[in-house]
Amino acid sequence: MKRDKVITVRGRTLGGDTPVICAPLVGRTRERVLAEAANVVAKKPDVIEWRVDFFEAIGDTAAVVDTLAALRAAVGDAPIIFTRRSTKEGGTPIPLDDGGVVALYDAVGATGHADFLDFEMGNDPEHVRRVVETAHAQRSRVILSYHNFGYTPGVDFLVQRFLEAERLGADVAKVAVMPRDRADVLALLTATATAHAKAGVPLISMSMGPLGAVTRMVGGLFGSSLSFAVGEGSSAPGQMPIADLRTVYDVIGRARGGG
Amino acid sequence: MKRDKVITVRGRTLGGDTPVICAPLVGRTRERVLAEAANVVAKKPDVIEWRVDFFEAIGDTAAVVDTLAALRAAVGDAPIIFTRRSTKEGGTPIPLDDGGVVALYDAVGATGHADFLDFEMGNDPEHVRRVVETAHAQRSRVILSYHNFGYTPGVDFLVQRFLEAERLGADVAKVAVMPRDRADVLALLTATATAHAKAGVPLISMSMGPLGAVTRMVGGLFGSSLSFAVGEGSSAPGQMPIADLRTVYDVIGRARGGG
Repeated sequence: MKRDKVITVRGRTLGGDTPVICAPLVGRTRERVLAEAANVVAKKPDVIEWRVDFFEAIGDTAAVVDTLAALRAAVGDAPIIFTRRSTKEGGTPIPLDDGGVVALYDAVGATGHADFLDFEMGNDPEHVRRVVETAHAQRSRVILSYHNFGYTPGVDFLVQRFLEAERLGADVAKVAVMPRDRADVLALLTATATAHAKAGVPLISMSMGPLGAVTRMVGGLFGSSLSFAVGEGSSAPGQMPIADLRTVYDVIGRARGGG
Repeated sequence: MKRDKVITVRGRTLGGDTPVICAPLVGRTRERVLAEAANVVAKKPDVIEWRVDFFEAIGDTAAVVDTLAALRAAVGDAPIIFTRRSTKEGGTPIPLDDGGVVALYDAVGATGHADFLDFEMGNDPEHVRRVVETAHAQRSRVILSYHNFGYTPGVDFLVQRFLEAERLGADVAKVAVMPRDRADVLALLTATATAHAKAGVPLISMSMGPLGAVTRMVGGLFGSSLSFAVGEGSSAPGQMPIADLRTVYDVIGRARGGG
């Protein structure tokens, strides 16, 4: 699958003028995930992320695949991101080992129901290679991601995370970091703008927590192509309601058009 | 008058959590200024700026003072900023020389109708000293300002503009610059945050034009205490409608409160 700076999936474009809005689903059971999906879809996010590390039956591949198929039917045209977030990068503990996660990604990719698979680039390099290759063979796209819930590394390091993700075969490169002060928030935006000028794939970035929430609103102006917003439950600190984010994008769109 | 990092005038606070929204009046005649004021007040800006360089009778001190008195009555509780913007910093040509402008500021300050006088710190140092001293004796406050419509100087230079304004006796320090790229927009925000940590007076800052419009929305998070928004006519490129700006501040306020 050819990688590109702008990706359009199911009519939603990553890398265009305005970021797409993605709502995470964090339910623990099939019933909760589907109820959450129904509730969230009414709020019209552009994209849905299933955070499968919250799913109690994650160790049962058939249950995951079955829930994903039901989710695919429930969310209409919205692209789905399938994400197991590791505990090292802010996720919930699961009963699978790393090899089990890779096997799960293989099985999920084979269904064709997940448009994107999100995998941390900090995982075992052989696993990263395997997830990227298998996903591409299955015609899924891969988001390679870097999260730091402790602090915000320097600008150069962050730029390298984006570019490393692309080098490893990502279709989309994601960086999410925690700020300690306003300078950290600006560092994340600076790194995004710098990487955006160099990268050949869409980027996703955010500074987390209340201090970083502004990057979820204005990140698109600096090269971020997707912003997470709360449908029903938040998956990371600082996410705001979908309607609020949409309102801000409308204002930014008008301001861009203006003198 | 004691200078402070937070200023409250007529119930509006500069330097608090959320910037105040200021609408400029750019009418050419007494009638236009007052009609504009009536229209703009309905949109509920926090502060009104009279850009007197647009006023055709600026050479007639009595006409200026009379219009200002009528404006004071027309805008209710809103603080008024009285501003002659020089042509060097983006203003309209006027028939007064620099000494005439200082004399006009003296006369306006004496009326007590202008809560703030905005004067460029790049004016003749003796004029800057005179405007600050006279205004303070008259119990008006002074905004010392720096504008660059051509480009965005480096961060250190911008930080020094804020601190120099304070050193010269400003009650509020203002910096407005034109960006050429996204790095310039982030430079203005970085300079504002840096100066805000050092300065003892409220700051006002913005990056102009469509590219910089985002700073009018999020500048408050980096230390800017006032944002200009369009009531009826804009006075600088990139200003957005008052209602749009208020909407964004509401979202930011909720995001700050959230997790």
